[in-house]
Amino acid sequence: MCRWLAAYTGVPVTLERALYAPAHSLIDQSLHSELGAEATNGDGFGVGWYDAQPTPGVFRSIEPAWNDANLRELAGHITSNLFFAHIRAAIGSAVQQTNCHPFRHGRWLFMHNGYLAEFATVKRDLVLAVDESLYPAIAGGADTEVLFYLALTFGLQDDPPDAVARAIGVVESVGHKKGVQYPFQGTIATTDGERMWVFRYSSEGKSRSLYFTKHVPTLRELYPERELLHDVADDARVVVSEPMGDLPGAWREVPESSYGVVGGGEDSLHRFAVKAPASAVPVGA
Amino acid sequence: MCRWLAAYTGVPVTLERALYAPAHSLIDQSLHSELGAEATNGDGFGVGWYDAQPTPGVFRSIEPAWNDANLRELAGHITSNLFFAHIRAAIGSAVQQTNCHPFRHGRWLFMHNGYLAEFATVKRDLVLAVDESLYPAIAGGADTEVLFYLALTFGLQDDPPDAVARAIGVVESVGHKKGVQYPFQGTIATTDGERMWVFRYSSEGKSRSLYFTKHVPTLRELYPERELLHDVADDARVVVSEPMGDLPGAWREVPESSYGVVGGGEDSLHRFAVKAPASAVPVGA
Amino acid sequence: MCRWLAAYTGVPVTLERALYAPAHSLIDQSLHSELGAEATNGDGFGVGWYDAQPTPGVFRSIEPAWNDANLRELAGHITSNLFFAHIRAAIGSAVQQTNCHPFRHGRWLFMHNGYLAEFATVKRDLVLAVDESLYPAIAGGADTEVLFYLALTFGLQDDPPDAVARAIGVVESVGHKKGVQYPFQGTIATTDGERMWVFRYSSEGKSRSLYFTKHVPTLRELYPERELLHDVADDARVVVSEPMGDLPGAWREVPESSYGVVGGGEDSLHRFAVKAPASAVPVGA
Amino acid sequence: MCRWLAAYTGVPVTLERALYAPAHSLIDQSLHSELGAEATNGDGFGVGWYDAQPTPGVFRSIEPAWNDANLRELAGHITSNLFFAHIRAAIGSAVQQTNCHPFRHGRWLFMHNGYLAEFATVKRDLVLAVDESLYPAIAGGADTEVLFYLALTFGLQDDPPDAVARAIGVVESVGHKKGVQYPFQGTIATTDGERMWVFRYSSEGKSRSLYFTKHVPTLRELYPERELLHDVADDARVVVSEPMGDLPGAWREVPESSYGVVGGGEDSLHRFAVKAPASAVPVGA
Repeated sequence: MCRWLAAYTGVPVTLERALYAPAHSLIDQSLHSELGAEATNGDGFGVGWYDAQPTPGVFRSIEPAWNDANLRELAGHITSNLFFAHIRAAIGSAVQQTNCHPFRHGRWLFMHNGYLAEFATVKRDLVLAVDESLYPAIAGGADTEVLFYLALTFGLQDDPPDAVARAIGVVESVGHKKGVQYPFQGTIATTDGERMWVFRYSSEGKSRSLYFTKHVPTLRELYPERELLHDVADDARVVVSEPMGDLPGAWREVPESSYGVVGGGEDSLHRFAVKAPASAVPVGA
Repeated sequence: MCRWLAAYTGVPVTLERALYAPAHSLIDQSLHSELGAEATNGDGFGVGWYDAQPTPGVFRSIEPAWNDANLRELAGHITSNLFFAHIRAAIGSAVQQTNCHPFRHGRWLFMHNGYLAEFATVKRDLVLAVDESLYPAIAGGADTEVLFYLALTFGLQDDPPDAVARAIGVVESVGHKKGVQYPFQGTIATTDGERMWVFRYSSEGKSRSLYFTKHVPTLRELYPERELLHDVADDARVVVSEPMGDLPGAWREVPESSYGVVGGGEDSLHRFAVKAPASAVPVGA
Repeated sequence: MCRWLAAYTGVPVTLERALYAPAHSLIDQSLHSELGAEATNGDGFGVGWYDAQPTPGVFRSIEPAWNDANLRELAGHITSNLFFAHIRAAIGSAVQQTNCHPFRHGRWLFMHNGYLAEFATVKRDLVLAVDESLYPAIAGGADTEVLFYLALTFGLQDDPPDAVARAIGVVESVGHKKGVQYPFQGTIATTDGERMWVFRYSSEGKSRSLYFTKHVPTLRELYPERELLHDVADDARVVVSEPMGDLPGAWREVPESSYGVVGGGEDSLHRFAVKAPASAVPVGA
Repeated sequence: MCRWLAAYTGVPVTLERALYAPAHSLIDQSLHSELGAEATNGDGFGVGWYDAQPTPGVFRSIEPAWNDANLRELAGHITSNLFFAHIRAAIGSAVQQTNCHPFRHGRWLFMHNGYLAEFATVKRDLVLAVDESLYPAIAGGADTEVLFYLALTFGLQDDPPDAVARAIGVVESVGHKKGVQYPFQGTIATTDGERMWVFRYSSEGKSRSLYFTKHVPTLRELYPERELLHDVADDARVVVSEPMGDLPGAWREVPESSYGVVGGGEDSLHRFAVKAPASAVPVGA
């Protein structure tokens, strides 16, 4: 499954401003994508956002995002300082709300642009590796939801990079035992509402693209005539699958096998290496 | 078409609190109604709410309200000091978002529990009586949407009781010419975000029910043990098709052929009389 | 989850005739039920039918059956000599097509009116007991789908009563180990397109109702003035959760802890006893 | 609104064979189109087909065609000797079943790939020109549905080319009075279940494309190795917006301002000229 994702942290804005306003916006991208693996992403979408409530809100729909009247409506009325948006192109699992990203557990959101290769082959063993207490919370049939529950099993809420490295480690371990050459592909974004962790990795070493906005004050100097940049706070950060808008030099690509920590005062970029499971995961147990 | 409606004005609350919390809540009512004309109301629903944006938000869906994951989600994250909620039981027009209440025009919301009798017979003449500049805004095929645009044609934004009286006047005039014995039935609620106007009227004089909450301080004296009432501000008002909760004496029925003005400091109840059109509405022109 | 079900075998008829025509039809029952556990069944529906193709067709939707334009349309154009119809009232699992009955595997259809008690508690162990080669075919999150795959694991295609007895045996065994008092409730219908097997059983011994039509020639003698009966072939059989129509004496109740074999020339009724698993099913493995 | 259309007449086949089988099939076209005005057509679809019933069946859905489980299912089970298929890209009117093509009236189906320019401006006058007895049958808000009812008003059932010429005549007359430069664009297909009439016309003289299959026996000589052609009867005809499959020379383009009569033994191609209304259509009456 190939999907688009976008995440924002910064001064509170309406979703509408972020989703619909920029040229080559996320909504445009749901109709036409240039760098994506699939040309069209019309198999549902989702947005997740933080507000004063104890858990983030999530709105998911199986209609194409570009003509969804409710998405446009809600986008004009939901204001948030951190939100995730995702548009899906399903290959394999059903087009249903429970398969739409972002997935949520407590205060955490999780989304993915990519796939677990030959998911039908590896699914049973991966689901078995999910902590038994978390198992009943799996509501749908998407590969990403299982990946999220694996990461939660391995401590996502305590140490996201370690948990994601271990989760993909299990995916690769099970996949290789089942004869899958490149078990994992994609970019991932997860957040607790304070900071975002974003990952770019694939077993093959040819991962889907991921971009950050550069430092806003620097962009303002580069493009003094851009009003949008004057409205945006210095600490605003946008992470996207594909650059939005038409500002050359405004985006910084996340390198292969890397992860970034975004928001909460300081950004950082790190090398990302998968952690193989200590003991063998039972196959076909 | 029979439908349920509920409206709230008062201190800002989440929709969840109002829609899901009370025993015999609006959501319960969508499954089981005791006073309603139809036992089940499962043909879509809608909520409209006011916030800092220039126009109210509207979320409408064609799935049954009682199991709609997005409604429950949004209800937990949308806070408003005035909102409308409506659940539909379609008889005649299609189950589609554009037929779900509340309808919106600028800052106005409008919803209705009832029907225009033999709508297929009278629709063309009624649509012709809508102001030509408003006509293109009619998006669906529901009788209530046409009634709303008739009321807008007759000055809803300036004098709601007069405009509704004239709009129903046209409905009755066209209906009688077409041989419809009782052209209008139902209760109506409309608002500009400041006050609500609610109407109870039917051509036959046997209108569907409509209730107000009584004065909150009085209710608090009556039911000192009810925590809910302690949280609610003195000026909170709820208008419903059927009483919610189990507090005897908490609700006041709106009498036949009456309208109320609710919110904005003072409530009042008035006699409602339909105003026949000055000149004959052309039939089959 | 409580649901309605109906099955027909006999001379080819349109689904419309069977679903919409009788007084107190299945579609009526989706709005109002008298004997059912829930008053309203509006969380999706499904029909499955056999024709000249190698596998039966299945049409499932999450909209309420009573106003679904596509169901009415298809019902008027699909003709079959054996079909299943089901209407769902979800409690627990999501309202999505992959959770709607009937479920299909190869030439087999399967549907259920009832529930696996405390499904979230027992789900993981039940899914583990499904044959590993069948596991990837589980597409949704409904308890009945897992029951169906358990029955397939235990040889549904060779000996349906034995396989269903073993499948419910596992449900009861796992349930009891997890502290569930009455793990299974409901009626089941399954077919290979030639015959139907229908079951009535509950761990508590208080099962939901299930009815057969009586011998058509006998009914014709009883009700000579009923035209409908003249059109129906001698071998027509209908199995329903609740009697349809208003012919006293036309229906025969399936007794507690019984199963029937219907169609294919001869009907028979048998005692149904659950078969406990030979070896213990591992819990929390 | 831009849309794709395809129509088939010939020996009975399953819809699946026609919709999914050819390379560059209609379903592919819903994802990627090369000649179409919009790159993606994901705002619902519809199929209409003839069988032994008195009126054709119609199945319409607002989900994208390419991943619709029900469409794939029904396509495998519906066999017909004449069917229409349509995929929508909405611009303007709502994404709802009542706006999906093909539209039906009695035994007639009608679909359109194109638009009525500035529909909101001309809609009221066009709807007024629909015969009053037909008006109540208009169920949605799409421009094509109004065009269909205009054509029915002008005698579609008696003389399709004349009725379509008069209907577009009214569209152009009203449009020009309202200041619309090029009021009509598109290709149209209509049928009574025996023959199909297909039209290519635009006010600007730059119409969207339309293609026929060539004579099947000739194609068989050209491509003796193609098995598909051996299965197809000599009288099979396919009409499409864009050629399907990869057989050079298999398709014949319908010229500008032309209409064809297809099926029923003999095909013919004619010049198409719009007929202006005899008396002025009242504007803003």
